[in-house]
Amino acid sequence: MSVRDIQLDDKGRLRHFLTVEGLSRQILTDILDTAESFATVGEQAVKKVPLLRGKTITNLFFESSTRTRTTFELAAKRLSADVLNINVATSSTSKGESMLDMLRNLEAMHCDMFVVRHNRSGAAHFIARHVAPHISVINGGDGCHAHPTQAMLDMFTIRRHKGEFNKLKVAIVGDILHSRVARSQIHALSILGAHEIRVIGPKTLIPRDASTFGVHVVHDLRAGLSDVDAVLMLRLQRERMEGAFLPSEHEYFQLYGLNEDTLAHAKPDAIVLHPGPINRGVEIDSRVADGARSVILEQVTNGIAVRMAVMAMVLGRGNADEGEVRRPGAER
Amino acid sequence: MSVRDIQLDDKGRLRHFLTVEGLSRQILTDILDTAESFATVGEQAVKKVPLLRGKTITNLFFESSTRTRTTFELAAKRLSADVLNINVATSSTSKGESMLDMLRNLEAMHCDMFVVRHNRSGAAHFIARHVAPHISVINGGDGCHAHPTQAMLDMFTIRRHKGEFNKLKVAIVGDILHSRVARSQIHALSILGAHEIRVIGPKTLIPRDASTFGVHVVHDLRAGLSDVDAVLMLRLQRERMEGAFLPSEHEYFQLYGLNEDTLAHAKPDAIVLHPGPINRGVEIDSRVADGARSVILEQVTNGIAVRMAVMAMVLGRGNADEGEVRRPGAER
Amino acid sequence: MSVRDIQLDDKGRLRHFLTVEGLSRQILTDILDTAESFATVGEQAVKKVPLLRGKTITNLFFESSTRTRTTFELAAKRLSADVLNINVATSSTSKGESMLDMLRNLEAMHCDMFVVRHNRSGAAHFIARHVAPHISVINGGDGCHAHPTQAMLDMFTIRRHKGEFNKLKVAIVGDILHSRVARSQIHALSILGAHEIRVIGPKTLIPRDASTFGVHVVHDLRAGLSDVDAVLMLRLQRERMEGAFLPSEHEYFQLYGLNEDTLAHAKPDAIVLHPGPINRGVEIDSRVADGARSVILEQVTNGIAVRMAVMAMVLGRGNADEGEVRRPGAER
Repeated sequence: MSVRDIQLDDKGRLRHFLTVEGLSRQILTDILDTAESFATVGEQAVKKVPLLRGKTITNLFFESSTRTRTTFELAAKRLSADVLNINVATSSTSKGESMLDMLRNLEAMHCDMFVVRHNRSGAAHFIARHVAPHISVINGGDGCHAHPTQAMLDMFTIRRHKGEFNKLKVAIVGDILHSRVARSQIHALSILGAHEIRVIGPKTLIPRDASTFGVHVVHDLRAGLSDVDAVLMLRLQRERMEGAFLPSEHEYFQLYGLNEDTLAHAKPDAIVLHPGPINRGVEIDSRVADGARSVILEQVTNGIAVRMAVMAMVLGRGNADEGEVRRPGAER
Repeated sequence: MSVRDIQLDDKGRLRHFLTVEGLSRQILTDILDTAESFATVGEQAVKKVPLLRGKTITNLFFESSTRTRTTFELAAKRLSADVLNINVATSSTSKGESMLDMLRNLEAMHCDMFVVRHNRSGAAHFIARHVAPHISVINGGDGCHAHPTQAMLDMFTIRRHKGEFNKLKVAIVGDILHSRVARSQIHALSILGAHEIRVIGPKTLIPRDASTFGVHVVHDLRAGLSDVDAVLMLRLQRERMEGAFLPSEHEYFQLYGLNEDTLAHAKPDAIVLHPGPINRGVEIDSRVADGARSVILEQVTNGIAVRMAVMAMVLGRGNADEGEVRRPGAER
Repeated sequence: MSVRDIQLDDKGRLRHFLTVEGLSRQILTDILDTAESFATVGEQAVKKVPLLRGKTITNLFFESSTRTRTTFELAAKRLSADVLNINVATSSTSKGESMLDMLRNLEAMHCDMFVVRHNRSGAAHFIARHVAPHISVINGGDGCHAHPTQAMLDMFTIRRHKGEFNKLKVAIVGDILHSRVARSQIHALSILGAHEIRVIGPKTLIPRDASTFGVHVVHDLRAGLSDVDAVLMLRLQRERMEGAFLPSEHEYFQLYGLNEDTLAHAKPDAIVLHPGPINRGVEIDSRVADGARSVILEQVTNGIAVRMAVMAMVLGRGNADEGEVRRPGAER
């Protein structure tokens, strides 16, 4: 069974959200449209909709990440779900229970969704292949593989500023090789029909077969940024870089750091994105990160809406009489 | 004041649940019947009943156990209670506060229930003897002494499959000596009137006075399993075994591990239970654990219903006009 | 902008609660009166009011404190808010994110309130100066600076027992120099018009300029306690004492420990307060701590009501049509 198949139910609706790869433009657009309907919930006096009341959403974090856990926890709570946080790194795996036995147990407790974060590529997919039929899995980041909700919040942010994708030139800058975010962004931009996708970075940080993904590989930052509508910066993840892929942070910033000078090569109304947390002065200059073209904090806000949308879509299936995807309204 | 007395209020209703020992068959049957009424809650679209809304349930864990904490947390949330998790092992006991002072403080915050897990026998009982009149204590496992909710979920699972207890032969296999689960199971089976209770294990792992509990001690697994209706396997808890009680895991499995051959000695429709997490290949073979006669995952599901039942019973007293035990109904 | 200014909104209502210093007697009295209206919530069968439903309250703890976190978490949950616990000490600050970037992110997630605990004086103030306009900050204790909710729960407890402050003589005993609690108590008592405030302790533990705060400095415990209406004991915080400020715990107890003999110098109906956790036999004798004049556990109960009051006041502004401060009523 391919990843694509496993993500959809027999009616073609999203059941798991493991990777952007292989999904249809329609599904991605549905996510963005649903997120749009959730985007105002965070601004209401009562930031809650009753869509998932009585559902149990489990954050299953094999890799600790307060930030990601927080956004999923808030999304779940604003949908009125009950949230269970399990930090597997620090929990009873010391008792030698296998991952599958742990999953079987959580299933038997009638958990409805696992949000999985793992430092090994394929972990969320592995779990999705083994869970019971009533359970949905959302990938909160697996190794170097995928981070699909991050990519979708980036797409949501771009669409809000730039409208349709088919006229857009987008650059992704940094450590493409190790980045699950970049992989998911490339798939999302490609499926949504972006006019041109460029990846920018040193040779050592770009996969050799990158051009086969339909992207343009550029090693010079200024040339790469020329005339783009959106700059997607990546975090320099030192912890993920094994060995000497680049000489020094200082030299890296000289060549691939985004500052006002290099950003000047992009379109005047280009927007700057970053998945956070930012390394100020390493991959991005503070004047750009905090400047008028930065939409970095909007991304965080949009991340809640996109995660609410995905959660509502995967758990909102099968209630035919309530409509395919139930749309939110302020709770009374 | 005996344990029995402390567990009941002046009208004979369950106030604390510290041990199965000394409770009446009627009380145990009430727990099973109440759990039956909760068993479908986990399968509803909205897995919540409003019985304990506005109550504060505190998981007071002196011994860390993600698994047990999770089941109590889910049970409490599905009853709509607020849950406070306090991991005493990692908390401010470093400031030198005594356990009694900590209890007094939590009482003063108007907590309604403590779920206590402790590696010392008698800890939950100690706490129950010292709490304020409005507070109930549930024992989530204390040292080698008792694990009463585990035993009751086992009884619930057996009753669902086998009906009444008075015709049943039940075997408990493994490290009886150190097992709080076995102690509670023996009491529960005895009070509920099981026809025959056998404990099976090496001499070093069975208390010398075991036969005074009304159980049959058998050292040969095959003989012990002969013609039983239910096999209750125990986890081999290496962490609880101090010194050389048994030669090696391999030899233990040879003698007391449950596999399809040894299970063949039980009745053809015998069921196999295990409190989890299982040590595959140590005390139980995977073909049995995952086989048709295993009800291990049902136990996990039933554990939520049984814990909901106990919580509802101990906190649902005293609202005379609402009925002795309020039964659940789907929340509107 | 002074601390006073930053705490109030443009209509003079409490927006942040960082320190008692500089607030008006009216504001402090409003807190006490509002807390009075919450004091019965903890005794209701349903300990919840719907005032802050849909609000997100974040416990942002840079210094771990299960006890303080618990009281704020309970206060928030009883106001029906969603609670997010972030233990910064153990979280992703390892990724090198700055505190300001972390705040910006939590703001972008539409958190409504930060309860801040930090071992550095001024931390809550720093955060309040940098948060977005819609966010309120409550100081849960910052270094040696302030612990305003603790001081207000002390005032609430004193007022309940003694009525108005203008006739009261109050003694604060212990390590005044390092105590954020003492600083906040002195400001609160002074603003509320206490007749006389005495600080009692060895020279090494009293600030040199103490008398400029309008307090009487006394080094002899018996003389200091003479005829007082309330004794506010401080915890001897060994961890906050750098160097040899006092000879030994034993000698300290001889000179400044509160026992029945020394307490006899206070008025016969004097009450004894302590912020907890108490060091039995170090700064207070068990017969006093557990005696008839001790109100230490009432303080804990009152702490929930006072924290609910502050939370409701700072987040309840700006809903002009709902009244300045919405008062609680049992939720249906």
